[in-house]
Amino acid sequence: MRKLIEEVFASQLANPILDSNADAITLPALTGDLMMSVDGFTVKPLEFPGGNIGSLAIHGTVNDLAVSGAIAKYLSLSAIIEEGLELRTLQRIVHAMAEAAKESGVLIVCGDTKVVPRGDGSGVYFTTTGIGVRKCEFSIGLKNIISGDQILVSGPVGDHGTAIMLAREQFGLNADVQSDSANVIELCKALYDLPGLRFMRDPTRGGLATVLHEINRATKLGIRMHQVNIPVRDTVNTVCEMLGYDPLYLACEGRVVAVVSEDDAEQALSLWRALPQGGDSQIIGEVDSSISQVVLETPLGGERILEELEDDPLPRIC
Amino acid sequence: MRKLIEEVFASQLANPILDSNADAITLPALTGDLMMSVDGFTVKPLEFPGGNIGSLAIHGTVNDLAVSGAIAKYLSLSAIIEEGLELRTLQRIVHAMAEAAKESGVLIVCGDTKVVPRGDGSGVYFTTTGIGVRKCEFSIGLKNIISGDQILVSGPVGDHGTAIMLAREQFGLNADVQSDSANVIELCKALYDLPGLRFMRDPTRGGLATVLHEINRATKLGIRMHQVNIPVRDTVNTVCEMLGYDPLYLACEGRVVAVVSEDDAEQALSLWRALPQGGDSQIIGEVDSSISQVVLETPLGGERILEELEDDPLPRIC
Repeated sequence: MRKLIEEVFASQLANPILDSNADAITLPALTGDLMMSVDGFTVKPLEFPGGNIGSLAIHGTVNDLAVSGAIAKYLSLSAIIEEGLELRTLQRIVHAMAEAAKESGVLIVCGDTKVVPRGDGSGVYFTTTGIGVRKCEFSIGLKNIISGDQILVSGPVGDHGTAIMLAREQFGLNADVQSDSANVIELCKALYDLPGLRFMRDPTRGGLATVLHEINRATKLGIRMHQVNIPVRDTVNTVCEMLGYDPLYLACEGRVVAVVSEDDAEQALSLWRALPQGGDSQIIGEVDSSISQVVLETPLGGERILEELEDDPLPRIC
Repeated sequence: MRKLIEEVFASQLANPILDSNADAITLPALTGDLMMSVDGFTVKPLEFPGGNIGSLAIHGTVNDLAVSGAIAKYLSLSAIIEEGLELRTLQRIVHAMAEAAKESGVLIVCGDTKVVPRGDGSGVYFTTTGIGVRKCEFSIGLKNIISGDQILVSGPVGDHGTAIMLAREQFGLNADVQSDSANVIELCKALYDLPGLRFMRDPTRGGLATVLHEINRATKLGIRMHQVNIPVRDTVNTVCEMLGYDPLYLACEGRVVAVVSEDDAEQALSLWRALPQGGDSQIIGEVDSSISQVVLETPLGGERILEELEDDPLPRIC
């Protein structure tokens, strides 16, 4: 166990704070309000086009902090490894984790590893907890949202969900779809100074539609979406049509949904489009107190209600 | 999923900071050096005399901080639940978790829940990450240890390991052994002001012997233990003799091993014995540069080398 920790984890993730012999570490002094977030990762398969469970475990927690207004600094990591997981697979996963941490500007400062017998796990499960410093002066939250606010998305939706579906190879389908797994730090930072910023979320499990329902439930305001403006890759659309999925319900792992005041929406769009990660961003709908549900205007001028997801179509998506 | 989170977790663990609708929470301002620790919990069975995986998940992380010189304030919680886990079982576990958090003076401020298909888990796995404030002015650590330092233990060893062994019911043995699972905050706090305090650790996986080996490995100094002074319950001794285990290698979950200077050792012992949790504490050995290994003096005056644990005799002990 000590060997596993030192050779696989500590060697890849080494930094001056991490101490594999200590029960706890002292964090360097941090100035400002601290924010904290935790996420568990159980994705299957462990590796997929565009990432693996290791990079996902970094992006997931970094992104939860970023959409909440904070830049992640320090992460804790817990790994629950199933006996029999190939060492080389684990090494690739931890390598991707180290790369993602570096790109995201975070250090993994403490960790724990447990090995469970074959059949009591599924390769490896990770949990990361992030500590970040609040950089957004505004309080971002669902409670700020009012009728007329615009809804933006930073890029095509459904890539991660589709990539995972294909990687499971249950359907005998081949298509070139990569997970969008990435940190969304720059996208979020770009809006931190915008007075009209109301709320941000990364549309992971349950996808864009689930974020819209969350807004609808919390605000009791309706939402009107314009399907023609919602970016979805052609390949994702094709795969979804063949398999009977709706890309609006499929997970993204590197996108942001933002709610911004009517006055600042165009400015937000420009800020995002100026970034490499936001080139395909769009204003996709608005909050509308004259309706009570989440309504999608179809390209032909029709309307349909986007129902709340009843059953998760894809367990273990993240 | 939302119902599960709200009815089972949020209802039991409610506090002003926890927000089941937020991706991240803001921590109230903390004064002093912050320390951080993480632990994963995979114990089997989930419930055992003296505790369950829920109380253990609190004590484990609170204790890792306490022995490192910090009092835990805030915890994050990740739960990976296997489909099919009985709701009532989960409710009992989360109830014990809430009680343990209350007793330990910590708040669970953020959480994440994942459900994995039957066969991909084992009831439930938890990960907790703790944030605490350093209260011990001294730097506690293995590097402080010198020859002549005394080794103390706060109570009988091997209770948790034995209780888990019996709870697995593989041996057809019945005996009244309770896990010692508890927070060790008061025990640790009692020594924070003692100038001769060198190092503390809670002897969990691998037990007392594994802590001694850790000291031996880090300091290159030998350790001489006096078996007659090491507190072990009669029932634990009997069960271990029947099953061929050595209680010195079995996990504790509510004990502290402390290394204290020769001058302050008696004072440390008095401080511990004045506490209800430390009534059975003992000075059990000393660091000795004239030897190079971990040596146990037996009650009859013999000596044997306490070897390092090769294989974990009890996987999934915590």
